[in-house]
Amino acid sequence: MGTLIPARTLKGFRDYLPQMMIPRERIMEIARRVYRSYGFVPIDTPALEYLEILAGKGSEETDKQLYRFQDHGGRWVALRFDLTVPAARFTAQHLNELGTPFKRYHIAPVWRGENTQRGRYREFVQCDFDTIGTHSLTSDIETTLVIHDLLRAIGFREFTIRINNRRVLNGLLERLGLSDRAVLILRALDKWGKIGSEGVKRELEEVAGLTAEQAAEVLRLTEIHGDMDEVLSRAERLVQGSAVGEEGVAELREVVRGAVAGGVARECLIVDLAIARGLDYYTGTIYETFLAALPGIGSVCSGGRYDNLAALFTTQPLPGVGASLGLDRLLAAMEELGMLEAVSTTAPVFIVFFDHQHRDDYLRLAAQLRTAGLAVELYPEPKKLAQQLKYADRRGHRVAILIGEDEFRKGVCQVKDLKAGTQSEVPLDPQCSALIEHLQRLLG
Amino acid sequence: MGTLIPARTLKGFRDYLPQMMIPRERIMEIARRVYRSYGFVPIDTPALEYLEILAGKGSEETDKQLYRFQDHGGRWVALRFDLTVPAARFTAQHLNELGTPFKRYHIAPVWRGENTQRGRYREFVQCDFDTIGTHSLTSDIETTLVIHDLLRAIGFREFTIRINNRRVLNGLLERLGLSDRAVLILRALDKWGKIGSEGVKRELEEVAGLTAEQAAEVLRLTEIHGDMDEVLSRAERLVQGSAVGEEGVAELREVVRGAVAGGVARECLIVDLAIARGLDYYTGTIYETFLAALPGIGSVCSGGRYDNLAALFTTQPLPGVGASLGLDRLLAAMEELGMLEAVSTTAPVFIVFFDHQHRDDYLRLAAQLRTAGLAVELYPEPKKLAQQLKYADRRGHRVAILIGEDEFRKGVCQVKDLKAGTQSEVPLDPQCSALIEHLQRLLG
Repeated sequence: MGTLIPARTLKGFRDYLPQMMIPRERIMEIARRVYRSYGFVPIDTPALEYLEILAGKGSEETDKQLYRFQDHGGRWVALRFDLTVPAARFTAQHLNELGTPFKRYHIAPVWRGENTQRGRYREFVQCDFDTIGTHSLTSDIETTLVIHDLLRAIGFREFTIRINNRRVLNGLLERLGLSDRAVLILRALDKWGKIGSEGVKRELEEVAGLTAEQAAEVLRLTEIHGDMDEVLSRAERLVQGSAVGEEGVAELREVVRGAVAGGVARECLIVDLAIARGLDYYTGTIYETFLAALPGIGSVCSGGRYDNLAALFTTQPLPGVGASLGLDRLLAAMEELGMLEAVSTTAPVFIVFFDHQHRDDYLRLAAQLRTAGLAVELYPEPKKLAQQLKYADRRGHRVAILIGEDEFRKGVCQVKDLKAGTQSEVPLDPQCSALIEHLQRLLG
Repeated sequence: MGTLIPARTLKGFRDYLPQMMIPRERIMEIARRVYRSYGFVPIDTPALEYLEILAGKGSEETDKQLYRFQDHGGRWVALRFDLTVPAARFTAQHLNELGTPFKRYHIAPVWRGENTQRGRYREFVQCDFDTIGTHSLTSDIETTLVIHDLLRAIGFREFTIRINNRRVLNGLLERLGLSDRAVLILRALDKWGKIGSEGVKRELEEVAGLTAEQAAEVLRLTEIHGDMDEVLSRAERLVQGSAVGEEGVAELREVVRGAVAGGVARECLIVDLAIARGLDYYTGTIYETFLAALPGIGSVCSGGRYDNLAALFTTQPLPGVGASLGLDRLLAAMEELGMLEAVSTTAPVFIVFFDHQHRDDYLRLAAQLRTAGLAVELYPEPKKLAQQLKYADRRGHRVAILIGEDEFRKGVCQVKDLKAGTQSEVPLDPQCSALIEHLQRLLG
């Protein structure tokens, strides 16, 4: 045997150990369930695409961050940096087969050669959902409902979905005579949460070239708070005279009304005129979602409406609306909030292995419990009881079943509640019905 | 606008449209459920690893097929070609935290620059499960049980898990004085399903350098069929006098007995002395699984026992046993066998959108049905009824709910069974209880 190869992951990449992967899988399962409950359907696309599909489709930054190389056939290829560009390519390519409206979800990893000093990872999972091929605000409303159901199903009660409409911003800029600098202004405004009013003001003046007065007008957006109806009325006054701005406010009103009709609690919904979303392609409703207990981690679910998803790939206009759940950011938040159990098993029930002579009996018992819907781990060999119980305890099994020679003779088993530390003797009938009932009661 | 970019996938890669992705997700969910029911826990590792972790760890072929390149920091990296090498690296790296036995599952894509002319894809998902850190045959038995439960849960009734033990083969080769050529001989034998007895004979003689007589002796393994006990007795005679061979037969006996005790139907289990598995690292039990209706597609779930998973990364010996479900091969088989429904929706219930005035009512109704656990798609806008029904029919929604002006006035809805073509009028009480009951009955 030669020298050992160091077992290590690449900088900016990480392994998921069971304790983290179990809740991560749980969140992905919840996302799938919620998306499906609205008729969104899953798709999958390759991790690798032709470089020309991906390059120049995000920002300058994502371009720099692209993992690109030549494949075995000399083709330039790259790892996808998001799921939006692949969705555009996919929809254009299969449009006839898919038809519209097309409601897709896509849960998959993406890769960006990010600067890891900012605590960012170079591989992370996105959970996107979009309704493609319709201008109807019903889909904007539904997007709000999905975000709401998703956060609640994951276990959050206190969060706010902040919505705005690009047209409101455009209307205001039109009134201020600043339409030509919209992109720069929205990018500056988007940083408000991070760099504050002073920072945004500086960027508006220095990068976008606004006067101090104009910058102050733009910044007034961040000062409009309070009752939803009042915010909408103030928005109306701000854009008065701009047709696009007035449309924007009307759309906002309609989305809010529909979302409330569809079940979103009013306290979870905020009209926030300062939400800008940096991405250029949004044209209507925009969404950000913040956790009340951890606003500082930023938006955990963001998105918006766009006029044309796939203009680079097809001449058919594809309007749509959607959002993306930041799975790994949310998981980090849940860890910080103590919402994750320190459990690294998927099986609440643990069977202690006492004696090789009885292996078949343990196997039969485990099979019977599984048939009753219980997840059961059987320790593979007759190590010392203390060692087996330590193993079970460390992993977080809830219940241990002990059947040694005595128990087999008496036709019973000991059921040890590993959380409470209590133990009961339960009879072992041929169908295990007493045991199954006992376990189901214990596990709730 | 410039020229369009052709919307296409790379050669050897493919998109999954909803009709295929829905059953693909379903199989992955079943795999997760079955793995968890035995206490296997999920892990995840990065798609990219240091090249030195992956290069030279599979065969010469996988080495050639590696997607490798230099990252932004000039490091040589590669996309994983399987989940076994990452599992070895992962286990070595986190051993203290994980403890043993460590039962992991890992469902993730892998990449190989395969020759696509053979109908192979360059990206495919593997569903691996392994018990690492124990020599106990309990885990070999459990591996058999998991394969069995998995295939049954997916919907197969007629399949055979073929098991063998490398030690039986080694014992035979020892007796024939051919131990030094074991690797070449097992590789040749592994091709029996593809190239037949004549092909294997030629390879044994020409590549492994066996005499015609020796080749015939090896090929006798492929002729031993029949009752499990008889096969085991014949195996015993074949290896008589070789300690390792006799141990191999004893292990096979024990695994078969345990598997039957654990619930595997005898007709699903075959001891097949000719199963060799090409991979060098197997040292004990080996598994292949064939569908009775489609044996030609090859094994859909294969694996085996190994003495040392991570010798390249740690000095601690890590014996283990596991197998891998060939998700995409299985899916192709299910398609060929007509086991996949032509459905591209996840929501059985479809609500027709008649009138903008009633959008809030539709939204409220949809929310009530979802609260009752039904997945519901609301069409986003008031297009023509025929067009909406065509959309629902094409996607495979099971039931359409129609509520126009008349129905709202009368306080009822029309429920159309899109499969049977029948329609019923159901009252719309405030809790929708009559409708919910009706739908639950219709959808079973």
